[in-house]
Amino acid sequence: MAFAHPYLMFLGDAPDQLAAKTAQGVAFWRPDWCPGQFRLPGCQADLGLPDMSIEDAAQAGCRTVIVGVANRGGVISESWTEALVEALGAGMDVASGLHTRLRDVERLREAAERHGRQLLDVRHPRRSFDVGKGSKRPGKRVLTVGTDCSVGKMYTALALEAAMQRRGMAADFRATGQTGILIAGDGVSVDAVVADFISGAAEWLTPAADPDHWDVVEGQGSLFHASFAGVSTGLLHGSQPDALVLCHEPTRTHMRGLPDFALPDLGACLRRNEETARLTNPAVCSVGVAVNTAAMREPEAEDYLAKVGRELDLPAVDPVRHGVEPIVDALEGL
Amino acid sequence: MAFAHPYLMFLGDAPDQLAAKTAQGVAFWRPDWCPGQFRLPGCQADLGLPDMSIEDAAQAGCRTVIVGVANRGGVISESWTEALVEALGAGMDVASGLHTRLRDVERLREAAERHGRQLLDVRHPRRSFDVGKGSKRPGKRVLTVGTDCSVGKMYTALALEAAMQRRGMAADFRATGQTGILIAGDGVSVDAVVADFISGAAEWLTPAADPDHWDVVEGQGSLFHASFAGVSTGLLHGSQPDALVLCHEPTRTHMRGLPDFALPDLGACLRRNEETARLTNPAVCSVGVAVNTAAMREPEAEDYLAKVGRELDLPAVDPVRHGVEPIVDALEGL
Repeated sequence: MAFAHPYLMFLGDAPDQLAAKTAQGVAFWRPDWCPGQFRLPGCQADLGLPDMSIEDAAQAGCRTVIVGVANRGGVISESWTEALVEALGAGMDVASGLHTRLRDVERLREAAERHGRQLLDVRHPRRSFDVGKGSKRPGKRVLTVGTDCSVGKMYTALALEAAMQRRGMAADFRATGQTGILIAGDGVSVDAVVADFISGAAEWLTPAADPDHWDVVEGQGSLFHASFAGVSTGLLHGSQPDALVLCHEPTRTHMRGLPDFALPDLGACLRRNEETARLTNPAVCSVGVAVNTAAMREPEAEDYLAKVGRELDLPAVDPVRHGVEPIVDALEGL
Repeated sequence: MAFAHPYLMFLGDAPDQLAAKTAQGVAFWRPDWCPGQFRLPGCQADLGLPDMSIEDAAQAGCRTVIVGVANRGGVISESWTEALVEALGAGMDVASGLHTRLRDVERLREAAERHGRQLLDVRHPRRSFDVGKGSKRPGKRVLTVGTDCSVGKMYTALALEAAMQRRGMAADFRATGQTGILIAGDGVSVDAVVADFISGAAEWLTPAADPDHWDVVEGQGSLFHASFAGVSTGLLHGSQPDALVLCHEPTRTHMRGLPDFALPDLGACLRRNEETARLTNPAVCSVGVAVNTAAMREPEAEDYLAKVGRELDLPAVDPVRHGVEPIVDALEGL
């Protein structure tokens, strides 16, 4: 699963901006790869990119159509198929982050075969993996871990990659979820891997590298999430991080999707992640905390970050408000 | 996936006794379900059961043929197909613990369809599961956890079920691996489930029950196994055990399949399991240690068990040598 860019961002008939969240993430982090968007009549989402027809996009050199949108019902609607078939005919691949598989839509499968193009379903890994080995590999790795799901682990990893590259460090974002995979152009949706192979998939994703190279690995779930901690555990073991960054959203009142579960204490969460990671990398250490303070006013956010930083004795930042430089400082010291 | 018994144990042309390990486990734990065995010329395994032809087995009322054997290459050989097709024609289902799927063998698939029989591949769950919810369910649960893979977690769970039932306790073994599933007649191969659904599958396996009912859950892997800890974590969270039994094999020099990994300290291993389990059941407690002392002489084994029992302040037994009564005493007190 490796996608060729430039991308045409396909928004279909998205009912609102939120439905295009995945596409928005890709356009935000990879503006150079996204020359335009394709919208059907009635589309209520807008990435602020030039609108293009399929023909325009082909002429502009687009190589993959990214279906980064959810419509009502979560299926690939008939109204989309027409345009996607046209794109396959115009020489583009089609990639999708939807649960429904592109290749289960007969007209798309036929058109892809006829034109020798690929249908790429990022939620459904087609690659098979070995069982994790646990052996220490050269190269450095930093993993974003979370108190909960959807607390900014992908955003933080991408902000770290960007800041590290600006300093001339060799750093590559390693994607473990669907939006991340579309942004990276490759990766593994680790929660869709067969359970026996979670750590093996994470090892594949973060292979042996130059001693100075950093894999910046997107975390998944949380060790304290009753639904997904198995995925988080396998990812910790397989990616064998040298450094951990804890991500947190301070206004959440319970674990995502689990109304009866409170969020863990930040210190306890970080210690549990360190203990777990130590199995495959005894030298693991925590280097910072990334907090999504979007729901707080500036002084409140600064107080909160100062308090967290003091309590955990680590740099605490909001990657959106303040960037991640203090965390990159810590990584440079490793 | 629920199998009808009695079972005809199919040994094919097993090259040695070890190749029939799965079949042996089923025959040992469910002797009443296993009236006979089927062997091809050259078979080097023997369960000590009466040899039966397919016709004999059908007349004896066998309802499922259990392919509990591995041949050279791990595939379903042509020489087996003949007999299995005959069994389907005689009205029996066929169940297999092999990696190769029965339904991928065209002649078997055709025969099953023609005769309206089932092909049951226990390694490949066909059921789909919900994401784990983590909500506390009525009923009691005990889970066997391990310092490593293959240290007696299934054997211990089955020994507990048998001893509990002898005392009149309501107890059901819950299988999480292939041999266990054939023994229980149902279950989930949790390591073959998609990673997002490990805890959900474990919840399905151990549903709400009478307050006095015990699920005796077969553990998988180890929190300290770099390949499989994700599976162990999801199983701990989903089965939300009230009680843990730690299983251990004291002569092992490294983690199974991982030459560079030492076994964990027993106390540290138990504490980590308790901490992890506490997320979905804060009242979890450890009730005993089950040690496979097969490689030790009797006085050495007794000394070792006494030492472990003292150090962990728990009953420590070898389920094969001494049974599991002291652990059942502890469970009765809960």
